[in-house]
Formats: sequence, structure tokens, C-alpha cells
Amino acid sequence: MFSRILIANRGEIALRIIRACKELGVQSVAVYSEADKDAPYLKLADEAVCVGPANALESYLNIPRIISAAEITDVEAIHPGYGFLAENDHFAEVCEDCGIGFIGPSAESMRMLGDKVAAREIAKKAHVKTVPGSEGEIKDENEAIKLANKIGYPIILKAAAGGGGRGMRVVHNDISMRTAFQSAKAEAEASFSNGKIFIEKFIVQPRHVEVQVVADKAGNALHFFERDCTVQRRHQKLIEEAPCPVLDDKLREDLCKAAIKVVKQTEYAGAATVEFLLDKDKNFYFIEVNTRIQVEHPVTEMVTNQDLIKWQLKVASGQTLDIRQKDIKLQGSAIECRINAEDPDRNFAPSPGRIETFIPPGGPGVRNDTYLHQGMMISPYYDSMVCKLIVHQNTRAETISTMTRALDEFVVDPIKTTIPLCREIINHRLFSKNDFDTSFIEKHMQL
Amino acid sequence: MFSRILIANRGEIALRIIRACKELGVQSVAVYSEADKDAPYLKLADEAVCVGPANALESYLNIPRIISAAEITDVEAIHPGYGFLAENDHFAEVCEDCGIGFIGPSAESMRMLGDKVAAREIAKKAHVKTVPGSEGEIKDENEAIKLANKIGYPIILKAAAGGGGRGMRVVHNDISMRTAFQSAKAEAEASFSNGKIFIEKFIVQPRHVEVQVVADKAGNALHFFERDCTVQRRHQKLIEEAPCPVLDDKLREDLCKAAIKVVKQTEYAGAATVEFLLDKDKNFYFIEVNTRIQVEHPVTEMVTNQDLIKWQLKVASGQTLDIRQKDIKLQGSAIECRINAEDPDRNFAPSPGRIETFIPPGGPGVRNDTYLHQGMMISPYYDSMVCKLIVHQNTRAETISTMTRALDEFVVDPIKTTIPLCREIINHRLFSKNDFDTSFIEKHMQL
Repeated sequence: MFSRILIANRGEIALRIIRACKELGVQSVAVYSEADKDAPYLKLADEAVCVGPANALESYLNIPRIISAAEITDVEAIHPGYGFLAENDHFAEVCEDCGIGFIGPSAESMRMLGDKVAAREIAKKAHVKTVPGSEGEIKDENEAIKLANKIGYPIILKAAAGGGGRGMRVVHNDISMRTAFQSAKAEAEASFSNGKIFIEKFIVQPRHVEVQVVADKAGNALHFFERDCTVQRRHQKLIEEAPCPVLDDKLREDLCKAAIKVVKQTEYAGAATVEFLLDKDKNFYFIEVNTRIQVEHPVTEMVTNQDLIKWQLKVASGQTLDIRQKDIKLQGSAIECRINAEDPDRNFAPSPGRIETFIPPGGPGVRNDTYLHQGMMISPYYDSMVCKLIVHQNTRAETISTMTRALDEFVVDPIKTTIPLCREIINHRLFSKNDFDTSFIEKHMQL
Repeated sequence: MFSRILIANRGEIALRIIRACKELGVQSVAVYSEADKDAPYLKLADEAVCVGPANALESYLNIPRIISAAEITDVEAIHPGYGFLAENDHFAEVCEDCGIGFIGPSAESMRMLGDKVAAREIAKKAHVKTVPGSEGEIKDENEAIKLANKIGYPIILKAAAGGGGRGMRVVHNDISMRTAFQSAKAEAEASFSNGKIFIEKFIVQPRHVEVQVVADKAGNALHFFERDCTVQRRHQKLIEEAPCPVLDDKLREDLCKAAIKVVKQTEYAGAATVEFLLDKDKNFYFIEVNTRIQVEHPVTEMVTNQDLIKWQLKVASGQTLDIRQKDIKLQGSAIECRINAEDPDRNFAPSPGRIETFIPPGGPGVRNDTYLHQGMMISPYYDSMVCKLIVHQNTRAETISTMTRALDEFVVDPIKTTIPLCREIINHRLFSKNDFDTSFIEKHMQL
């Protein structure tokens, strides 16, 4: 196991990784921007290093500064968390070149699976069904229109390097394609420095189901079952759960095996999430692989009694997966609500500021993953997701009851958050009946 | 199920019961003394009623006022929590007479099992071994000396109505018996209005192991395995865990079966804890039954995935235990640290006052049961146990690691607490080796 690592991230995921390090006896070095210098979780790391000003491009996204911090503090490896540099294969390569371990897959694996067009090819090679669409990059709107007419509208435009809904457009006809293609491309270029766009058939009323996989350097790969992340707002996940409540055992097994097959096409080592769409008729289609830990990993941890961050550290340090697939068992039901500092009354605009009162929920079945506490500032510079509330119970109905009372207990004042929205979703009749798809928020919430 | 109940308690256990009620869809009425009128958990109940001044004798212990509150608010039953009126059979009787359900056993069961002398007789009838000692009450020091010489010193004097170490004295010879007997009797009289004293052989280097039982009104009784509560300071439990790390499967089964046999001797319905001492040679001796929920119940909940407060509500409302013994399975290891607002540097004197900073630990495996939050006052009027930190992991070693990092994260300022003491115990070499007995704190801690 590593003796000392650097965490190239901030907020709740930095604290999550610090906690795992402490429990494994690994020293952790936190980095921070000037905006985060008073963050209390920094005190829990063994060392903390300033890497630049508030603007992430000059700190959390600045590769030379992160590498310098790693060299100065003499760490063996870097954990990138999620977001920032987590899926930047150039960063993974720089780490490799500097002799610093990257806690994630190799730069090459990341390039192969991180590019959505290349990943579709890999899935096809693994005989896993993909959503019908373009074989590769679409050059212009004319090519897009031609292909869209061939596979049939509606279609979705996606950025090859994308994530988080950026560079994505659903298109219903030739006319809207002309504007949508250019705006998607421009957004992809701005967000990922990569304007590659591809086309997929837009699956109507799908559920978003993803499989957690961890692979070691010896070529072993295990799945940790699936998560359902169907509740999304503008392609941003809001509520996630495990297991997916509409799968039966057979379909679950097929899905998890398909995920392993995709990952095994490359010499992958680390945590990966293989994402699928599940249509109304329970057909599943591969969409992409996330080559990092995900925001929603805790629901998997709750239902499997496994610690995914510790597994990342173990396999990155060269340890093998010393459990068998059959020892990873599903137990009960878990739901995660993402608590964003956003104002639903102002179209979910970020709502930074000082927290005057903070009372997190507690008691049986409740897990809080957050770096917040009373008196601290929520910074305007970074992602508005500031807290994850996770509930685990024996049945989905019990999980919903416990989540409801936990959301009712939760006080974050005077910051505006998505707590009321989460409560509305969790208590919606269609949510408890499992009768919803990715359009649930748009269709049924009074935003 | 009840539609509305009253909670005749305060602090963390009141909040724990409110949470269970909310999850079951039961309305809850909280009561409070004038000292607790601003307690934030009161807002989580459906209604809150003042029952008198700060002095518990005039509020939480005042039966007429509690009954009035129950009648005014039109509840069907009263949950007494632990402490205060929880083991007062007169209170249970008054509830019965007033047609209000008591969420606990009948007054008669409580009388039979609550009196330690009577409980020993019941255990003997059930063919469960008890600690050698007096058949009943010891009248005076001469009788005590005679019996002590017969069974052999050291012996322990205990109050028949006792609990929490009050009225208890370990005696090593005839001379100290003369003073110990009178002081134990006086303390018992003062604490429980019952001066009955009995004698037991003092088991040297024992472990304290207790079995959680729940029985329904149809005569079914199930055990939820055992807890180890060996880490005590002056007979007050400080750290509890489940399962007991020194039992093997056979001994565990024998112990749990013995507990069920004792409970079944009376027409018991409700939650009960059957307490045993385990000697160096792994012989177990029945000591007493607690006829209420216990402070340490969360460790059992964590390793069995069962909610004991919900079971109390279910069986009190007449529901039967609709699970089978074999469906209650042990999973992993759980430890609870009691966080007391006490100053270890001032001989554990209570340390009330305002909490300026409160940062509870979070993340995987951590459960907080507390009513505390930043800015609130810890009252000088009541028990100093203000928070329970519970950790659950797959193995005891992992539980210790997670508890260590959770205690390290915990900030309660400027109140003095037992957090540093808990950290010292949890990290002690003998604790991780399971090589300790009830004298652990006195022998190995630098207090």
C-alpha cells in the first residue's frame, strides 16, 4: 500500500478520500486554492498545500502546479477524485512520466474508454449492444441530417469528450439540427477543448442504469452491481439508487456481465462505471464508460458493504482483488440525494454564501458525505453540489421513509438548496411506484 | 399500529423515537421541561408539551404530569425511552389503569424481572446459571458477613432495584463489609426508594455480555444476538460492541438461548436485555434483565439490519414478530462510543454549557445518534451522555480504524467531553487484542 498520496481535488470527495486514507494508515496531502484556504477538512489531511488562486484553471486544473505539489510533498501517487483532472488522460500521462502513481487507469485506457466514440467501438467488439448511431465523429450538420434520417428522429448529439450534459442536444427534425449541431460543437469545444460530436438514436423514456466495476493490474475485474440514476435534471443526476428497482436477477446478471466484458477489452485497472440506457422493453444499450470514481458511489458501498475508495487505493498500489465475485452481495436498498447549493426559484442558479445554521440528519440508516459545517462559506467558484445524503434500509419503501424524515431534519440556512426538490421527488407517487424515466423531473416537478 | 404516541423522555433517545415514529407514519408528542424548551428536536415531533420545571422530579419523572400530557394530547401509548420512568412499574401500572398503552412490558413482568433478587429466582427456574450469592434480600451486615464467608470473598453488594452502578460495592473482607453494607443500602434507598441489598460472588476479570431479546404479545420471543459492554468506568458503560469478540458460535448460541429462556419465564412482551457475566473460562452467569430499550441498542441494529425501536412500537401495538430467528443474521462488527459532556481532568464532573463549534463525523460506516448542534446549550440538569457515535464495518479491525478517524474528526467546543478518553481506549493495544475485562479502564487508562 502507498504510504503517502496527494488528493488533487476539493470538497466532499477530498474529505471522502482523506477518510479512506486515514482508515488504511496512508498519509494524505490535500491541495487547496486560495478560496478554500479555511476549509476545515484540510486540517484532517496530514499536510495541505496551496496550489493557486480561486479560479480552477489556475489551481485544481493546473497540471504543473499539482505535479509540483506532489513532488514537493514527496507523495507516491495522486488521487484525482471526480471532475477537475479525473478524466484527463494527459494528466495521467504526466503523472506516469514523472514517476508518480495515478490512482485510476493508465492514460491509454482512459483515452480508449474516455472518448465516447472509441468506447462504442470497444463495446461492439465485446459484443455488447450500443445505441444505434454514428460510427465515429460527425463532421458537419449535413452529415448529421443524413444520418439522423437514416436512424430516425429523435436523435441526440453528444460530445465525444463530454460529461455532465455539456455538448448534448436532443434533436427532433432537420431544421433544429442545423442550429443544434453548431451549438453542441461550440459548447464541447469550450468545455473539453475537443469539439468532436457524434450522433445516437434518442431512446424514448429510458432509465439510466450503470454498473460499478473495479479491475486490478493482474487482469481481474469484479462488478459491484448496478446503480439507477434515472432522476436527472438537464442530464445532471440528482437522485441515485442501488439496486435498480426495475431489474430482475437475470437482467441484472446480464447487465453486470456486459459491463465486465467492456472493461476487459482494454488492460484496465481501477474503478470504472459502465453506463447503459434501459428502454421500456428492458433492452439495455451501452452508452459510455466513466474511468473514475463517481459522485454516486456511496449507494453501491451501502448495498455491498464494500469501500470503493479503498479498492481504488489498493489496486492502484498493485494489490489484487482478494475477494470473489460471489462474496459481493446485494443487501437492502440505498438512495443518495445530491444536495446542491442552488436556488430552485431562480432556475437553479448557484446559491453561495455563509451557512448560519447547519443541522445534518442522523440516526439509523443515514450517511452524510459532506465537508460543510455551520459558519463556513460555500464558495461561488466551484460546483454547487456540496453534500450527499445517503440512506440505507432493508427495503426500498423503508429507504424512502428514512430519506423523507432525514430530508425533513436537514437544516442548511440561509443558503438555498435542492433539499425541497429532493423531498418532492422522493415523495412523488411515481417515484415510489418505480414508474418514471429520465424525463421525470421535466414532466412531473413544479420547478 | 398506533396513530399517535407520547415520548416520556428527552435528548437523544427522544429524537431516536421521533425518527422511528416518522418512518412508521406514527404521530409523536414530545414532552419537555422548561430547561429543554428550546431543544431543536422538539420541532421534529408533531406536538410538544411542557411538563414542568427543569428538576426532573417535577417534569420527566412526574407521573401525574406525564399522564396529563398524554391525556390532553390524546395519544394511544407512551414510550418511556431509557432512564426516568422506563423501569418504573408503578408508572406502567398507572398507564394501564388510564387506558394508555405502555411501550414496554406489563407492570407485572417489570416487577418480576426488574427486581434483581426476583430475577435471579426466575433464571434459576429457567435452569440458567446465576452468580453464586444470596437467595434474597440481606437484612444486615452480620448476615452479609456470614454469607460472604460461605461463598468466599471478593463479593459484590447490589441494590435489588439498582442500575448504573448505584448501590453497588465490591467487598474483600469482613472489616470493609461493615461500612460497605450500610453505605450501599443508604445509596440504594436514596437512588431507588428501595434499600433492598443482595450479595453475589464477585467474578474476577469478567466480561459483561448481554443479549437483546424482543418478545410479542402472542408469546413469540426472538434474540438479536449479543453486545459486549465490558468497557465500563465505575459500572457505567462507556464503549459497547456487537458481536462480542470473544464468543465462538456455540457459546453465542447457548447464551442467546439462555436469554430467551429467562424472558419466556414471564409473559413478557417488548424489548428486554438479559445481562450476563462471562468469566475467564468462558462460563456465563445470568445477572439481570433490563426491561427497556438500552443506550447501546444501535450496535445491535447495525449488525442485524433491524430497527429495535420500530420493533418496540410494533409489538406494543399488538403486531407479532413477523420474522424468523434464522432471518436475523450477524453482519460485520459495530462499536458505539458514548460521548459524555464530562471533564476527564476534573474526575469526570459534568461539563455543561454552550456548544460554540459542533462538527460531527460522517462518511462511510458512521452513525450519529445525538440531539446536539452548534449553538445549543448542554443542560446541567440531566445525564451527561449527550451523543452516541456508532461505527459499522465488515471486521472489528476495520471498525476500530473507522472509529479512530471518526473520533479524530469530531469537534465539540469548548465543552469538555469523553472523546479523548474514547480515543485512548479504542487505540489501546489490549482493546484491539480483545484482551481486557471490566477493570480495563481502572487498570490501563491514565485518568
